[in-house]
Amino acid sequence: MNDQVTVPAGELRGLAAAALTAAGAQAGHAAATADVLVESDLLGIATHGVQRLASYCQRLRQGGIKAAARITVERKAPSLALVDGDSALGQAVATTALECGLEMTAETGIAYVGCCNSNHLGALAPYALKACERGFLLIGGSNAASTMAPWGGREARLGNNPLSIAAPCPEPPHFILDMAMSVAARGRVRRAEREGTPIPEGWALDPEGRPTTDPAAALAGFLLPFGGHKGSGLSQAIDLLAGVATGARFLTGLSSGIGHPERPSGSGHFFVLLDPDRLIGAETYAAAAARFRRLVQETPPADPAAPVRIPGQRQQAHRAKALDHGIVLPRDLLAEIEALTAGASD
Amino acid sequence: MNDQVTVPAGELRGLAAAALTAAGAQAGHAAATADVLVESDLLGIATHGVQRLASYCQRLRQGGIKAAARITVERKAPSLALVDGDSALGQAVATTALECGLEMTAETGIAYVGCCNSNHLGALAPYALKACERGFLLIGGSNAASTMAPWGGREARLGNNPLSIAAPCPEPPHFILDMAMSVAARGRVRRAEREGTPIPEGWALDPEGRPTTDPAAALAGFLLPFGGHKGSGLSQAIDLLAGVATGARFLTGLSSGIGHPERPSGSGHFFVLLDPDRLIGAETYAAAAARFRRLVQETPPADPAAPVRIPGQRQQAHRAKALDHGIVLPRDLLAEIEALTAGASD
Repeated sequence: MNDQVTVPAGELRGLAAAALTAAGAQAGHAAATADVLVESDLLGIATHGVQRLASYCQRLRQGGIKAAARITVERKAPSLALVDGDSALGQAVATTALECGLEMTAETGIAYVGCCNSNHLGALAPYALKACERGFLLIGGSNAASTMAPWGGREARLGNNPLSIAAPCPEPPHFILDMAMSVAARGRVRRAEREGTPIPEGWALDPEGRPTTDPAAALAGFLLPFGGHKGSGLSQAIDLLAGVATGARFLTGLSSGIGHPERPSGSGHFFVLLDPDRLIGAETYAAAAARFRRLVQETPPADPAAPVRIPGQRQQAHRAKALDHGIVLPRDLLAEIEALTAGASD
Repeated sequence: MNDQVTVPAGELRGLAAAALTAAGAQAGHAAATADVLVESDLLGIATHGVQRLASYCQRLRQGGIKAAARITVERKAPSLALVDGDSALGQAVATTALECGLEMTAETGIAYVGCCNSNHLGALAPYALKACERGFLLIGGSNAASTMAPWGGREARLGNNPLSIAAPCPEPPHFILDMAMSVAARGRVRRAEREGTPIPEGWALDPEGRPTTDPAAALAGFLLPFGGHKGSGLSQAIDLLAGVATGARFLTGLSSGIGHPERPSGSGHFFVLLDPDRLIGAETYAAAAARFRRLVQETPPADPAAPVRIPGQRQQAHRAKALDHGIVLPRDLLAEIEALTAGASD
């Protein structure tokens, strides 16, 4: 990992799009996906950035992500729409939905857009940031393949579903909460397994539903939701909004893009958008949001060296730096992406 | 506590309304509030039921809750409204908002209603249940006086803000998540203090921001959010939707109804409502919701004697029983309420 390279965001975006089109994706879908992936890397969310390209390209070649997909938008009412992804790249589906939602919100002050027949949409923060830049609040979520047991259960039936709630400030950083439902991300359990270290108690259960500190047993078993029954309930709530209400698959109906790259995931997503200007006026809102941020940030810190931050603040600081200085990547990863642009399969 | 009485819901509703009008509340505000309080008792949420009447009556007499309040509704767009509570009983404000939201959702398929200048609105579950009975999904929240530190801070600046997400099923139980942001409710810390028992680690910090198991130190200090930074971020998100976007007070701006009964709280609330019939059709939605519920409930349980339940299931079972057999109350509490109906002050 010491061997790193720095790539300007624009260049990385071009490479990512080229990798996806080399695997068969349509130019528009590839561009939207490249944008969300590179935004994730800009925000420092590397787990949801360009390191996903190899898996996406494999799925495009095997048909789990449909290269020839036709994404359709159906306006159900002035503030309601459904997007059928036809198993396209999830970022292309979700970007279509977000753009439709932003348009409806500009017209009516509010929108709900649901997506069905989608795939992994990446991190939610890049979508939330776009909503904030337009001055809108956002509630967004996606379902995901089952990796967690409902509270009190011993079988994986819930996804580690991400939820984002975001609110714009007059200037960055905006308030951008983007969290999943497990105590710890699956990637951290995988890393512990690779490194041969135990995981803390409270992260996961083994396949029998017993607490474990063994990362292999945890990966065969299930992650624990944060806050016990609260995280378990919230995961279900997101799936109801993202899966059930959109006509997408839900719970165990989703297929895992990693376990079965050749099968469409059938994921669902949703965005609720809200224009505060239509509610209380842009100026009143801006003053209140700025004051809210200041009140949180100026909380006396428990550790004087660690000031209190609003959610998403660290990511947006990372983004500002990475826009100026480029995105730092492992050299191996850049080589892998360059090979993908040449149409190399894995 | 062994000395209990059983009161039919209708009778308790009448007593509760009479207690509030005896303290000066308008008949309509008293009826709406009595309804939400008794619904909470029906659901088994006694902490948010008629045991709150004494405090509400005291606040009505001292002016923190304004007896002569005029609640106004401003329709901002076909799916957007703001309710100014004029410091009325919070349940009357929130009921007005919910009714307006249900009406807009019937027309347009979606609504956001925000409330400002409100007071304690009670539990969210009774509002969520009404939305489910109309066939709508609900996202609702309220801010509350500061009792928690933001993650990494050592001063109470966040409320233990409740969040509800609910989705209707073809028949009860509906999916009704209703949770606050702390690991444990403040009422449980107060009970430990009364009983002279320590509280578990991880529930609270003392006034210096150090972990404590002493309930008195915890009450002087602050509750910890569930899931650490996740609960802290979610609490802020709710306040942004309920306080900042509605023009209400937020964070430390709220006044505590318990600490300062004579001052209006300035609370904010919000409801987002969504009609699944407008999205995917009522029948498709109903079949999916029923299947979702079954998949969760049929998860093999960790303890064979404790089947997995959906959020809100136990409360709705409690309600069905209490509707048939009456609400069980401590005899002292019933006597207190009867005294309030006679205009007794405390």
